[in-house]
Amino acid sequence: MYLEELGEHGLIRRIQKRFKSKDRSIVVGIGDDAAIINPSPDKSLIISTDTLREDIHFKKNFFSPSDIGWKAVAVSVSDIAAMGGIPRFLLLSIAVPDKTIVKDIDGLLNGVKDISTLYDIALIGGNISRSKKGITLDTTVMGELPKGKGRLRSGASVGDLIYVTGIVGSSAIGLSLLKSSFVYSTPSLSTSQLISTHLRPLPKVNEGIILSKNKLATAMIDISDGLLADLSHICDQSKVGANIYRDLIPLPDIHLKLKKRLAKEPLFYALYGGEDYELLFTIKKRDREKLEAIFKKKSFDITFIGEITSKDNGIRMVGIDGNKRIIRPGGFDHFISKSGGKIC
Amino acid sequence: MYLEELGEHGLIRRIQKRFKSKDRSIVVGIGDDAAIINPSPDKSLIISTDTLREDIHFKKNFFSPSDIGWKAVAVSVSDIAAMGGIPRFLLLSIAVPDKTIVKDIDGLLNGVKDISTLYDIALIGGNISRSKKGITLDTTVMGELPKGKGRLRSGASVGDLIYVTGIVGSSAIGLSLLKSSFVYSTPSLSTSQLISTHLRPLPKVNEGIILSKNKLATAMIDISDGLLADLSHICDQSKVGANIYRDLIPLPDIHLKLKKRLAKEPLFYALYGGEDYELLFTIKKRDREKLEAIFKKKSFDITFIGEITSKDNGIRMVGIDGNKRIIRPGGFDHFISKSGGKIC
Repeated sequence: MYLEELGEHGLIRRIQKRFKSKDRSIVVGIGDDAAIINPSPDKSLIISTDTLREDIHFKKNFFSPSDIGWKAVAVSVSDIAAMGGIPRFLLLSIAVPDKTIVKDIDGLLNGVKDISTLYDIALIGGNISRSKKGITLDTTVMGELPKGKGRLRSGASVGDLIYVTGIVGSSAIGLSLLKSSFVYSTPSLSTSQLISTHLRPLPKVNEGIILSKNKLATAMIDISDGLLADLSHICDQSKVGANIYRDLIPLPDIHLKLKKRLAKEPLFYALYGGEDYELLFTIKKRDREKLEAIFKKKSFDITFIGEITSKDNGIRMVGIDGNKRIIRPGGFDHFISKSGGKIC
Repeated sequence: MYLEELGEHGLIRRIQKRFKSKDRSIVVGIGDDAAIINPSPDKSLIISTDTLREDIHFKKNFFSPSDIGWKAVAVSVSDIAAMGGIPRFLLLSIAVPDKTIVKDIDGLLNGVKDISTLYDIALIGGNISRSKKGITLDTTVMGELPKGKGRLRSGASVGDLIYVTGIVGSSAIGLSLLKSSFVYSTPSLSTSQLISTHLRPLPKVNEGIILSKNKLATAMIDISDGLLADLSHICDQSKVGANIYRDLIPLPDIHLKLKKRLAKEPLFYALYGGEDYELLFTIKKRDREKLEAIFKKKSFDITFIGEITSKDNGIRMVGIDGNKRIIRPGGFDHFISKSGGKIC
């Protein structure tokens, strides 16, 4: 059945049925002119919006409808995580051609449902419209945050230590594998994980909450454009520079093993590959032990990779020999390097 | 200059400069991963999102960039008005081809700025991405509302009176004029007003606030799909029917004067033409005098057009002769009648 047979109102009823919520702070959810919520009175509200466009942000030959739904929500959730917020409410705008098969819409909604369930987020509204060509999903995620605890990009000072959660580069390597035929002939658990990082990223909400709760992070950002590009956003907004230690960048065995199959060095993907949705953050030097103890206890993976310097140092890579080299942050500008981004 | 030369970050800085806000409830605005606001603790938060896509919702030969920016915000503001909320914060997602002229982006931002200034709304964030073809604007407007005062579609009861604010059909007649060559050869103040209703609608925020503040409206919706279609949404969700009096539908002189130039009767545009962004609402019979006195005092235009009946009556048009005829609500389904809509 095509969407044009189900109709807009049929689709809205379908969504309404699938996304029932028992969240008592939702006064009015899907189905009226607007949604109404009662946010916690002692909290700040944190809001982020993002877009996923077919043939700009994803290709349908790599992404299943369910992956598209998942990732569209993940990218907005990650922005909430990057400030230390707890995601709570979702608005979803869907634009699809009328010749879309309802099964594909169901797949897409399944992906949205899966990630919403995992992160305990309620769909409270959105919009449906026709597109001439291609799928576009716009997501707005609203979250909560104790007042004054939001971690910004602008709080890093000279001497702060730079950390990253998890592994960087996996998403870009995953995409590279998807583009090659290799992945289909020899799938393995590890390569599947890299691909999954690209298709169904897991925003680091719990890590973000810890880093904001204890006011541990002085500055924080999620890695969507690439480690160096996102570091440069912190440096620009904090008016500082940074030294990054080349041999401290986490390069897991699976990245190194795949070296021969990749067009570039594993380090390249770690530094310039975006869409990992890990967190890059800075802390005061005196908080190092406290940070590492908390994260060890929770079994959350973090790696120390460098230090904040004065602005005139720029961003430098420190080699194993101790030589410092200014590096280009690179990264993703939607119009210059052909790819978009966040106003907030 | 093309957008690809200015770049995404250049554009973000341009937006940041133009949309500075002194609103003290904004903790973090444009420029970080997410926006942070402190909503009023005693109020509910009301949220609506909408999409404006080139060649689906508008054509560039009718709409200037500034009109596009205006209307994209207006459609979301109107949903806030339809529940009686006060619009306060805006998120704007822009998708444009990289060969877009920066002057056109400036025009678009001017339209957003104009309506934001008029309604006292602060731009707090959004997203920028590249599109392969055409402009798409996604707007999310957040507003405030005293707790328990939100007016829903579902509150109408048998015997309630049906009212509409302002004039209906002007937007559809304005579009019809734009499609003809007439408007260009003989522009007049009145035809300009009709066209302006289509290009730069004025959501009825103040009227909505009055109707919610006094809990006057038992049900309320904004007219985006068309008077009858939106009435049918109230009837569906309130589980009621309605009688509409044909001779009470407001048809101003200018609509009647243009009769010869239009493809259909003026009444057709009033009943089926959408995008007026007037409010359609119901009240208790006992509140009639109170309502009319309040609106007269404010010089806000409202018209009594019918009554709520039991569900099995359906929606009927009562002629001058008293004959009742069941009518098709018609209206706009994005996939059936080729056009999208709201999840919330």
